[in-house]
Amino acid sequence: MSHKKRNDSLRRTYGFDEISLSPSGKTIDPLLCDTKVKFGEYNLETPIIASAMDSVVSPQSSAEMSKQGVLAVLNLQGLWARYKDAEARLEEIANAPNEKFVSLMQKFYSEEVKIELIGSRLEQMRELGCKTIAVSSVPQEVKNIEPIIAESGADFLFVQSTVTSTQHIGKEEGLNLAKLCESTKLKVIAGNCSSYKVALDLMETGVSAILVGIGPGAACTSRGVLGVGVPMATAIMDCADARNDFREKTGKEVSIIADGGIVVSGDICKAIACGADAVMIGSPLARADESPGKGFHWGMATPSPVLPRGTRIKVGTFGSYQQIIHGPATMDNGFHNMIGALKTSMGTLGAMNLKEMQNVDVIVAPSILTEGKVYQQAQKLGMGAR
Amino acid sequence: MSHKKRNDSLRRTYGFDEISLSPSGKTIDPLLCDTKVKFGEYNLETPIIASAMDSVVSPQSSAEMSKQGVLAVLNLQGLWARYKDAEARLEEIANAPNEKFVSLMQKFYSEEVKIELIGSRLEQMRELGCKTIAVSSVPQEVKNIEPIIAESGADFLFVQSTVTSTQHIGKEEGLNLAKLCESTKLKVIAGNCSSYKVALDLMETGVSAILVGIGPGAACTSRGVLGVGVPMATAIMDCADARNDFREKTGKEVSIIADGGIVVSGDICKAIACGADAVMIGSPLARADESPGKGFHWGMATPSPVLPRGTRIKVGTFGSYQQIIHGPATMDNGFHNMIGALKTSMGTLGAMNLKEMQNVDVIVAPSILTEGKVYQQAQKLGMGAR
Amino acid sequence: MSHKKRNDSLRRTYGFDEISLSPSGKTIDPLLCDTKVKFGEYNLETPIIASAMDSVVSPQSSAEMSKQGVLAVLNLQGLWARYKDAEARLEEIANAPNEKFVSLMQKFYSEEVKIELIGSRLEQMRELGCKTIAVSSVPQEVKNIEPIIAESGADFLFVQSTVTSTQHIGKEEGLNLAKLCESTKLKVIAGNCSSYKVALDLMETGVSAILVGIGPGAACTSRGVLGVGVPMATAIMDCADARNDFREKTGKEVSIIADGGIVVSGDICKAIACGADAVMIGSPLARADESPGKGFHWGMATPSPVLPRGTRIKVGTFGSYQQIIHGPATMDNGFHNMIGALKTSMGTLGAMNLKEMQNVDVIVAPSILTEGKVYQQAQKLGMGAR
Amino acid sequence: MSHKKRNDSLRRTYGFDEISLSPSGKTIDPLLCDTKVKFGEYNLETPIIASAMDSVVSPQSSAEMSKQGVLAVLNLQGLWARYKDAEARLEEIANAPNEKFVSLMQKFYSEEVKIELIGSRLEQMRELGCKTIAVSSVPQEVKNIEPIIAESGADFLFVQSTVTSTQHIGKEEGLNLAKLCESTKLKVIAGNCSSYKVALDLMETGVSAILVGIGPGAACTSRGVLGVGVPMATAIMDCADARNDFREKTGKEVSIIADGGIVVSGDICKAIACGADAVMIGSPLARADESPGKGFHWGMATPSPVLPRGTRIKVGTFGSYQQIIHGPATMDNGFHNMIGALKTSMGTLGAMNLKEMQNVDVIVAPSILTEGKVYQQAQKLGMGAR
Repeated sequence: MSHKKRNDSLRRTYGFDEISLSPSGKTIDPLLCDTKVKFGEYNLETPIIASAMDSVVSPQSSAEMSKQGVLAVLNLQGLWARYKDAEARLEEIANAPNEKFVSLMQKFYSEEVKIELIGSRLEQMRELGCKTIAVSSVPQEVKNIEPIIAESGADFLFVQSTVTSTQHIGKEEGLNLAKLCESTKLKVIAGNCSSYKVALDLMETGVSAILVGIGPGAACTSRGVLGVGVPMATAIMDCADARNDFREKTGKEVSIIADGGIVVSGDICKAIACGADAVMIGSPLARADESPGKGFHWGMATPSPVLPRGTRIKVGTFGSYQQIIHGPATMDNGFHNMIGALKTSMGTLGAMNLKEMQNVDVIVAPSILTEGKVYQQAQKLGMGAR
Repeated sequence: MSHKKRNDSLRRTYGFDEISLSPSGKTIDPLLCDTKVKFGEYNLETPIIASAMDSVVSPQSSAEMSKQGVLAVLNLQGLWARYKDAEARLEEIANAPNEKFVSLMQKFYSEEVKIELIGSRLEQMRELGCKTIAVSSVPQEVKNIEPIIAESGADFLFVQSTVTSTQHIGKEEGLNLAKLCESTKLKVIAGNCSSYKVALDLMETGVSAILVGIGPGAACTSRGVLGVGVPMATAIMDCADARNDFREKTGKEVSIIADGGIVVSGDICKAIACGADAVMIGSPLARADESPGKGFHWGMATPSPVLPRGTRIKVGTFGSYQQIIHGPATMDNGFHNMIGALKTSMGTLGAMNLKEMQNVDVIVAPSILTEGKVYQQAQKLGMGAR
Repeated sequence: MSHKKRNDSLRRTYGFDEISLSPSGKTIDPLLCDTKVKFGEYNLETPIIASAMDSVVSPQSSAEMSKQGVLAVLNLQGLWARYKDAEARLEEIANAPNEKFVSLMQKFYSEEVKIELIGSRLEQMRELGCKTIAVSSVPQEVKNIEPIIAESGADFLFVQSTVTSTQHIGKEEGLNLAKLCESTKLKVIAGNCSSYKVALDLMETGVSAILVGIGPGAACTSRGVLGVGVPMATAIMDCADARNDFREKTGKEVSIIADGGIVVSGDICKAIACGADAVMIGSPLARADESPGKGFHWGMATPSPVLPRGTRIKVGTFGSYQQIIHGPATMDNGFHNMIGALKTSMGTLGAMNLKEMQNVDVIVAPSILTEGKVYQQAQKLGMGAR
Repeated sequence: MSHKKRNDSLRRTYGFDEISLSPSGKTIDPLLCDTKVKFGEYNLETPIIASAMDSVVSPQSSAEMSKQGVLAVLNLQGLWARYKDAEARLEEIANAPNEKFVSLMQKFYSEEVKIELIGSRLEQMRELGCKTIAVSSVPQEVKNIEPIIAESGADFLFVQSTVTSTQHIGKEEGLNLAKLCESTKLKVIAGNCSSYKVALDLMETGVSAILVGIGPGAACTSRGVLGVGVPMATAIMDCADARNDFREKTGKEVSIIADGGIVVSGDICKAIACGADAVMIGSPLARADESPGKGFHWGMATPSPVLPRGTRIKVGTFGSYQQIIHGPATMDNGFHNMIGALKTSMGTLGAMNLKEMQNVDVIVAPSILTEGKVYQQAQKLGMGAR
């Protein structure tokens, strides 16, 4: 039969754990490597953006991360927009036993979002010293809250849903991103997406940046619940292909933000090597002593009243924002000094700046659990001969 | 040597854990997504069919699942057709220690099937409120029991064996499926099969649907015992290719039921995305509070007197049929609200109905246990630096 | 650079765990399937040969396995050729603690082989009722012991070393297999080999069968110690390719015996489906109640005085030879009723005899430890939600 | 779209655990196999070089390994060049609890290197009986210490950094390797590198040998921290391709030293089969009773004050240098008798010397953790049926 089988034409995709970066013929002193990134007229000191998750960003932590050059995004669908005393709720979540966690989350997040609270949170962030103000919301709420955000003088509006598209079919008319970009003075960043085509579609709406990553986050169970998810290395490479083509065609620069699946500093290096301009990270910052999650981390799809799709992870606390972002490190596992690690990786790979880092050599090198690795592991645990 | 080696032309096949679904450029409000499925003149409310296994379907549970839109198939080779007090046997199985389990099963299933008991079970199902009545048997018993089943006014007859074919060689003449389909007023569904060719052969006999899946079930040890088994994603894609070709050639619609290897709601989404019209699930329903298995699940090849080929799994109980099938979910791992998860997956992927869901983008994305995953897992358990 | 890199032309090979057997359009009643195998003029009742290992074959167990249709090979380099009271040594090995095991083995196997003991062992086997007498030795000892073996009226002489070739370079002239085959009245079986070329070379010497398998055995650590090993499915397929070509060229039939890596009954099915005529198994028979290893199993490279290369495995005892070979099974994991499993596999795959079984469809279907599997496993252990 | 996606052209690379060596048609008595290796005018008795790590090489252990034919490299950036009483520091490191280890290392290695101490260490090595003297340093320190090393009559200078290149960009002018090679009477060995291009570049500077291996070591966390690392089998094959091309072009022989990721004797065999002339090993020698690490092993990037990138492994002690290098072995897992294992592997593969060993057949044969392996493992642990 000359019949072409669907099974035989499936595409192979790759996650961070399946790739590695391979040095070229050039090396650079890490101190000379530049990790600044340009988002339109904004210059960010580091390519690190803190995820719009209640376990990661509060008004207070936002200001603290700002001092480290990290752009923190406050979730305006989160507890801080629902409760005056959000702090107390965070405390309760941290103390809830595992079996009560999902229903507690469902209860807390059923409280409605309050416009006036949003206004005061933005003011609070400014007062606490945030240099650049970034907030996020879901597409269906943007119309209601955009005026108060813009009025407050905020800079970035992240319009974020698990999976975004420019062709949404719903009972009510969806958000028109192109119109929003045209009418607002806020810089709009939209996502998440994972494919070349959707990335291009979003770029054409006039957004400043797109969020890339569907299903890979540490606190995300989309793949098990929905069967949906695209491994990060492939998603970033495909969307970066789109950015490059869009730039070539239009001369405009739209940034790619890799969002999800970043656990250690090496993953940041890989994300940028795959073509990202910046990374949005949750769990690595949730591990900070100052983190609002108090040693816990959970996804923002968790509190869904009918289909919770995240989980709460006990991440522990392993040092200050300073240590985690700029070091010096006292841990050797990629938890500390993420920018130092990025610079060392860049130096090692001969990349003077992030644009050069986007073109280093990426190889397929699965770090799967082989027998040899298990053996090694056993040795690490001090186990002797079989 | 120009010799073509057999090793170098083996075909790569894929299981559910090796694929993922990738969003397209369209999204839909899940509330608009339609999960109904048409089996000939029958319209099923959901694409979920409960496996013909004693740990999953009893007359009572059949009626309860019917209320949730699930078509439950009573196994007429099971305890309910052998014992008047089947309930007591189920109780004993649930309480048996592991080492006694296989021999206990062999004893229980050596009791003969009783025609009169079959009649009363069918009546019982009707009385309990089953809207559509579905039963199953093995090919060699169909001749004996078809009359009483048809007479009772049942709807579907599943003719099911581990591996089926249309060319069976045995000492006695085998079941002629084509004749059965022609002569009975029951809708016949046959299987299991896994290849394009056998799927086509079965479709030509006049069956309403075929069961696809050999060897992948949670309670099945065929692969270890017989070396036989075809990964589900490949099996479904190949048989769906056959259905499409058969439809094109004959204009007739035969349904594909994916049977086996479905553990969480994401697997249902994947099965349909690979081309299935419906799924037959065992362990996910055996986890219901009302399940006849009382927290246990076992395969129907287990009690074979000479070659037991299933195992008993302690699956636990995690909620009602309502919660498992339609939610709302209080668990975030794909155990609850399977139809809600399917609709959300469809919305995410831009599929308005199950036919559209059969054409979404499937990618190869192994979710293997990498070092990174183990690390993440360690973090989840609250473990610190190495 | 147009330079062709060596890395990019490496060949992919497969082990039993990476393949599976896929049903065709035909099924057969297992009772009609024939598992007899022809070795030259010898007709073996089953394709199972017991490994020439002290933990598997003693004169007594050889006779018992003979009754089950299994050809057991007594190792004439083993304890039975070194000690009159071999039984006492086996007892000591079974009772030795792990840390003393290697040095105990080195001591026991440093005792010399005694020609007269060989004679009496062969006589003993005959008296105990072995129908066909098979023994093994290493190439360098064959010259010394062939006369007494031939004289005793034995049938098969296995000339076995870890890796065999027809071009051995040593200080002394090596064994000339072609001369041996010509001069002896014993049927000569030689190995082990793993490649098309060596298989062909060996066939041309006039041997009756070749042993295929380097490095995959349960009690073998060749891969870790020497870096050497060829996955079984590939090795068998390549050597079966050679057998088919040799048959076509010469009209002669040389048998392929798959030796190593067979743990459960499904592996026997896979070995034959890859092209083997018979299988040589160790650990599955070492699990018998009557096994000389008394619940332990060890490789014959273990006692090497300078480079021990096997390990002792506690395999436990799980039933009689009768249960393990012909059933009925009371275990569902491929430990019991290996011939029943083979027949059921053959029926399932539509193979009437072993020759037909050699041509069934083999697919690449890795049974790797995926997250889903681990999840399932956790369920089996009765673990609940995360 | 005819657009060529970056994802689809990534190169597949291989680690030691993913390859295996396949026998050819020739075998040789291991006693005839020659494991000597020529480095320019130097003839090394074995291809084993001890890593320049404080847990592996001290002046004392260097002399002891010298007696076994192993070239041990003393790290002149290590404790022996910083402290008169280095022994006491090693004792403290061995006794430090896990959580204090990184900061203790950072403290110890912040003490400055002392030129006069280097002189006395070299003298000490000579007095203790080292036949060939080899030391290592980082590129930036070479200028300062080369005179005293050369003056002492040492033989080899290893210029080693995690990733080396011939085009280093730094604030100060970097080390000019070509000038160093021309001006010094020491044999220069440089690295580490992993690609064809860098290997060629380094060879053209006039070094005697290059070190190949980035990121795979047992005590190295570069891959997690930096995202950087090249699997060893690929790195060695690529650099060996470069050596062969360089030899063909210039007639000069530069040696390839595989450095990192070698855990058991089989890995040494694989490294040479991939094309290495020699191997540099750390953890296998750190397991010696006489090892300065006293049962511990750590990477030399560990004490970095800002970005520690190694870890301390408890490797235990499992025998003398004699047993580990030349046997006889009393362990069966590749820890003992590495040269005996190499010779046996060579004999098995038909390689008379190391040059022939570089051309044996390498296959892709992942030794991943499959279900079957886990099952086997469970059997080894004496576990019964499920």
